[in-house]
Amino acid sequence: MSEDYRSMWDELGLDPAAHDALLGVLGKAYQEIYLAQKNRPQGMEYFDFVMSEVHGLRIRELLDEKKAGRKIIGSYCVFVPEEIVLAAGATLVGLCSGADFATEEVEKLLPRNTCALIKSAFGFKIGKVCPYLESADMVVGENTCDGKKKAYESLGQLVENLYVMDLPQVKSEVGRSLLRSEYIRFQAAVEKLTGVKITAKSLKDAIDTVNAKRSAIHRLSSLRRANPAPISGLDALLANQVFFYDNPARFTESVNRICDELEKRIADKGGVFPDKTPRILVSGCPQAVPNWKLPMIVETSGAVIVGEESCVGERGARNPTDDSGETVEELLDAIVERYFQVDCAIFTPNRDRVDHILEMVDAYRADGVIHYGLQFCQPYLMESIPVEKELEAKNIPCLRIETDYSMEDVGQLKTRVEAFIEQLS
Amino acid sequence: MSEDYRSMWDELGLDPAAHDALLGVLGKAYQEIYLAQKNRPQGMEYFDFVMSEVHGLRIRELLDEKKAGRKIIGSYCVFVPEEIVLAAGATLVGLCSGADFATEEVEKLLPRNTCALIKSAFGFKIGKVCPYLESADMVVGENTCDGKKKAYESLGQLVENLYVMDLPQVKSEVGRSLLRSEYIRFQAAVEKLTGVKITAKSLKDAIDTVNAKRSAIHRLSSLRRANPAPISGLDALLANQVFFYDNPARFTESVNRICDELEKRIADKGGVFPDKTPRILVSGCPQAVPNWKLPMIVETSGAVIVGEESCVGERGARNPTDDSGETVEELLDAIVERYFQVDCAIFTPNRDRVDHILEMVDAYRADGVIHYGLQFCQPYLMESIPVEKELEAKNIPCLRIETDYSMEDVGQLKTRVEAFIEQLS
Repeated sequence: MSEDYRSMWDELGLDPAAHDALLGVLGKAYQEIYLAQKNRPQGMEYFDFVMSEVHGLRIRELLDEKKAGRKIIGSYCVFVPEEIVLAAGATLVGLCSGADFATEEVEKLLPRNTCALIKSAFGFKIGKVCPYLESADMVVGENTCDGKKKAYESLGQLVENLYVMDLPQVKSEVGRSLLRSEYIRFQAAVEKLTGVKITAKSLKDAIDTVNAKRSAIHRLSSLRRANPAPISGLDALLANQVFFYDNPARFTESVNRICDELEKRIADKGGVFPDKTPRILVSGCPQAVPNWKLPMIVETSGAVIVGEESCVGERGARNPTDDSGETVEELLDAIVERYFQVDCAIFTPNRDRVDHILEMVDAYRADGVIHYGLQFCQPYLMESIPVEKELEAKNIPCLRIETDYSMEDVGQLKTRVEAFIEQLS
Repeated sequence: MSEDYRSMWDELGLDPAAHDALLGVLGKAYQEIYLAQKNRPQGMEYFDFVMSEVHGLRIRELLDEKKAGRKIIGSYCVFVPEEIVLAAGATLVGLCSGADFATEEVEKLLPRNTCALIKSAFGFKIGKVCPYLESADMVVGENTCDGKKKAYESLGQLVENLYVMDLPQVKSEVGRSLLRSEYIRFQAAVEKLTGVKITAKSLKDAIDTVNAKRSAIHRLSSLRRANPAPISGLDALLANQVFFYDNPARFTESVNRICDELEKRIADKGGVFPDKTPRILVSGCPQAVPNWKLPMIVETSGAVIVGEESCVGERGARNPTDDSGETVEELLDAIVERYFQVDCAIFTPNRDRVDHILEMVDAYRADGVIHYGLQFCQPYLMESIPVEKELEAKNIPCLRIETDYSMEDVGQLKTRVEAFIEQLS
């Protein structure tokens, strides 16, 4: 890393030793997990570069944007509408939450029995190792699960400008009104932060930018329907992860470039793994950078992941927003409609999610489903039982996994995953 | 138990052997925990009787009501408004959830990491040992915590007429509208079930009945402010538990009779424990019958519990409803106002609860607070950390306990509680 970055990190108030340690671990993991893969699309070089510069060049860009007067907004959830952020001339970035950090300090603020993702968000803040969080002018929390909802009460003591968005639990008309009124409140907060009034033009442009990004990642997903799969689950997951960090236009272009390459590969009957490699759909909790544990286990055990039914995956990326409205109000309604379709496990009932899993199994020609649950994530762990029952009733093999970010259970998980894959072959 | 009850239980579909075993354990626990106490108010004889007949006479009464055309509605939460139920000529009863039952079967439907209260509700159903649940014409669930919210999706497969009430997470104007619209929806559902149209008169009468019940239990609470405490925490908790089961008018009368007796006792400087016994406020998760574990430990360790900041306790029983409205709509508004004050940990932020704990410490002259958290109850466990911090900043000793319904940790808890009480003396 250049000295230039070092002074940038110092200015952001990062802890130099801890941050160096994090980058060391991250670099090593990336090397061992990503760069060790075979038959990667050439276009993944872009993502290799993004990852090598994830706390470097991208942060420099954000800080340059800030110098030019642009605001940076951080988020932990796919319910925070990037369309509204972009329309007000601000940038939305996903915040760090995929690795354990400062666990002892975190457990003074949160019960030990809190899911790894929430603990991680606190760890990155307390450990002073997340330059995205330190760059943010506003951090947006949201009342999704109980864990996050209550954790934001404490996170509010740690970060300066925490904004909390309320969310419905039921897809009723009142639920829709709540989402709408919360998006209007968010619009006002973002406009206040940026000093920029959102117009129909700026909102429509923002919708188009985000639609293009979703459309590119959706195109990538669709190409994974091919048999043999043209890209590894690890690489596709990485693209889905970078979705939350990167400049939207550049991201769209980079993903589309990979898609062009994959289309050729498919036409040539090429694949990243041998023909007849068992195909797995992963469903459940989000996997944030650098949480590559499950796909690493699966794809070194003789199977390929062909889809992620997850917030970092299809749940976050599908469903474009209708951009045909002509007023801010109409466009906002379209945004509400788009997000109201998100089939997060916080909703009850949540029939849509099971239907979507079944659709994905079919569309991606999956031989089985691994339900990925973070320990203590009540919504997804509770849904995993009826999901498994329904899959098994349709003779779709399902393996429910409950884990965290530690590497201690990798051996045990690998044994279970191998046995599951054996059953699919 | 009389043979008469046996045929009644058979008709309700209870499992005779399992139910006998439950009653055996319950009776033994009551004997050892309750009847072994000294200096009990004479009026507690009523509650001894109620408990000895908890699955007998009270169920016979409910079945007689049903025969007479009255409907029985079961609930698991203080957010289900008894006023509306009574106004439609129905009876509300709290459902069984204070003991482990059929755990192995329950854990096929719910993750192991689910709180004991929710698992217990399933266990009583699967084990066929809750005559209240089997008597109910309608069971009301509610979107409070994630655990309950998602569990009702599965409970709906087990019970016939499950109605789920949505609840807000924020005390905003939209939150209030949601509560209001849900109470109106509930009113319609109850009217449909009973065939009785609620009138201003019936609603006002119902409010008065429930207010009288709350006022009696609140009077009992207030008497516990005296030093020495005139009643044990165990006995007061029992009254708070029976609050959810008993005929409201008879309950009110019985509690007031105890209060009359306690007033005399206080005038005579009498107490249930010696003068200067350390006084403890219990705050946190509900303790449903027969979950008497914590007060049993505390009150056999040389302290007395003087208040319960809990749904089974002051959170459920305080705040009368304004009955001055003249129309159903006005009275319903008053009901919404009353319930909107409930400071359950599902709300964010939930400043009111901390303030109320501090008020109770002061009013009940508590020397310390024990925060009672059920394992995996995220809302209360997460709040317990800031609650403890705030109490300690005010030099109020606080002990955070995290436990379940098993008796395995009693020895360990007793050691911690004794050390805590030592510190208060």
